[in-house]
Amino acid sequence: MTRGIAILGSTGSVGTTALRVLERQRDRFHVAALTAFENTTLLERQAMQFCPPFVGIVGEAAKPRAGWRTGERCLVEAATLPDVDIVLNAVVGAAGLDATLAALEAGKRVALANKETLVMAGDLAAAAAKRGGGEIVPVDSEHSAILQCLSGRRRDEVRRVILTASGGPFRDWPADRLARATVQDALLHPTWRMGRKITVDSATLANKALEVIEAHYLFDLPYDRIEVIVHPQSVVHSMVEFVDGSVLAQMSLPTMELPVLYALTHPERVPDTGVGPFDPVACSPLTFEPVRYDQFPALRLGMQAGRAGGAAPAVFNAANEQAVALFLSGRITFNDIANAIDSALETLGDTASGSREALLAVDAAARAHVRRLHSC
Amino acid sequence: MTRGIAILGSTGSVGTTALRVLERQRDRFHVAALTAFENTTLLERQAMQFCPPFVGIVGEAAKPRAGWRTGERCLVEAATLPDVDIVLNAVVGAAGLDATLAALEAGKRVALANKETLVMAGDLAAAAAKRGGGEIVPVDSEHSAILQCLSGRRRDEVRRVILTASGGPFRDWPADRLARATVQDALLHPTWRMGRKITVDSATLANKALEVIEAHYLFDLPYDRIEVIVHPQSVVHSMVEFVDGSVLAQMSLPTMELPVLYALTHPERVPDTGVGPFDPVACSPLTFEPVRYDQFPALRLGMQAGRAGGAAPAVFNAANEQAVALFLSGRITFNDIANAIDSALETLGDTASGSREALLAVDAAARAHVRRLHSC
Repeated sequence: MTRGIAILGSTGSVGTTALRVLERQRDRFHVAALTAFENTTLLERQAMQFCPPFVGIVGEAAKPRAGWRTGERCLVEAATLPDVDIVLNAVVGAAGLDATLAALEAGKRVALANKETLVMAGDLAAAAAKRGGGEIVPVDSEHSAILQCLSGRRRDEVRRVILTASGGPFRDWPADRLARATVQDALLHPTWRMGRKITVDSATLANKALEVIEAHYLFDLPYDRIEVIVHPQSVVHSMVEFVDGSVLAQMSLPTMELPVLYALTHPERVPDTGVGPFDPVACSPLTFEPVRYDQFPALRLGMQAGRAGGAAPAVFNAANEQAVALFLSGRITFNDIANAIDSALETLGDTASGSREALLAVDAAARAHVRRLHSC
Repeated sequence: MTRGIAILGSTGSVGTTALRVLERQRDRFHVAALTAFENTTLLERQAMQFCPPFVGIVGEAAKPRAGWRTGERCLVEAATLPDVDIVLNAVVGAAGLDATLAALEAGKRVALANKETLVMAGDLAAAAAKRGGGEIVPVDSEHSAILQCLSGRRRDEVRRVILTASGGPFRDWPADRLARATVQDALLHPTWRMGRKITVDSATLANKALEVIEAHYLFDLPYDRIEVIVHPQSVVHSMVEFVDGSVLAQMSLPTMELPVLYALTHPERVPDTGVGPFDPVACSPLTFEPVRYDQFPALRLGMQAGRAGGAAPAVFNAANEQAVALFLSGRITFNDIANAIDSALETLGDTASGSREALLAVDAAARAHVRRLHSC
């Protein structure tokens, strides 16, 4: 019997990658549900190819086909179907929260590409998993790397984890040039092809802050055992240093096919052709650089928000999402993104954590704060 | 209760490293036996520091202190003492064979730095382990790396292992310069401080051939799944590629303290200060190069001997040991080492494998063949 997969966000970058993987792995998995935000054309093509019993479209402006479920609620519906064993949550941003919580409550594995879920509501997710028996397995390449390096190891054997960052398109830009960075500049990621929001997050390094917070919750590690290092080649996806001084690193060419597949098969591995044979000579040299925290304040702010705890990570995430949206629409500059996050954290960062409703309220307040800053 | 360790070859490079590790780990291990070849002064100092109930000296010319055991038989005696849980076999060359077999028969863990044991008699060692319930855990940094990367993984999840080689002091020497390489040149290893024999083996790359054969037996892998790559920095100690395309690599600064400790604690890890915090920036860049098989025929010959099976690996090992001894004493040139191996394999390589006695006979024949070649 094959395992049923629900893909939330199937028309995005991770969703389409997952379908390429699942096309090859039909003897192990079947697609039980697909949902997308608004790309009706692609969703229809995917539905014809994989024939899932459940298809849902979220966006109100999108025109659903006959038999499709509609609206935001279809995410939770898909995530809790009886035939679904694994929910691949590749929804962008806070919209993915409810589906993750519902899937965990329903005892599913959540293959999580929606890191905002854990950043906003890491404690809620942990509680839901505990109640329902579900589990979160990361899809981010960095966290997948850590999971692979940790495999079978007790947590008290870990000295620290080292998250690698490509450094993004502005890795070596001086401050004055950064101030003039355009949307086009920010979307030219050197090693990964991804969606627009996460690509901008990779340029500000806000993405790496989200990943640090995600690692804190996923692996139950204090922040002083999570470090970030710049590795421009994106071949070493992250490292774990153990208490005896040994370091394990996970490597591969930069493709999301591997972490997506591993999130489905963990703790096992299955043969797959998505990643060709590793050629160390072709990948050589591998270089590492310190992070320029002074030039990338969004990373520093996000790590501070993580350490502060409470609702601060949710404020960081929401302010960043809103600011990136304004940047992408040409309303604010690149540096305004970090400034907006800073201002939102100043005003709302002390909010205590709480229920889902309280977190959504603080999320909305942070977004409103950023819009007000720029009179949008 | 602490576990008892017998160190065979305690005054050598691996032996003294092990004692530094055990000095720090006295709450987990105690030294139950020490043996050395002929360095009486150092052995006496070690015996005073660790107070093992058993001390043995092998060399006939060495002057034993009162209460010491003597002669070759003390290796097997130390390896089979009731209080010994782990035998660290750091004897150089074929002299370590009987102690390994006896320890495996007696149900001990053998922390094996004496790779010649497996190269000569991999099948005998496997049979002894099966009969007696013993196990071999590698001390070589490369095999320790592979073991750490494999930890908890099923063997059918492995696509291949990639052994790294520093390339030795002659990594980038042209052929004409190699022909004139002196003993002094060969002993200048760029990254590792080791004994003389293994340092020369690192210069000819014969050492890497021995490691390929060792990996074949240790991890039960066919030769076409074992590759060698040059990595001059000796930071990545080896890699494993899995069937899904993911690669795990084990890294640390080049120190034997870590693989020695891991061989004692596997599959667990314990806190230790032998290796400082890993600094990827300080280690950067990490580079990889193809092996120049044409310039280092000893590696090619050894891998061929491994594939040929039978007594060929034992012939390779014995011819190499004899040739290296002649090179170190100034009797033959650097290139003569590979030529001697080639000639011995031509003459004796087809010998079938067999009992311990048959293997020792072929070992002696290969050494005699090499001496005859040079009328020694």
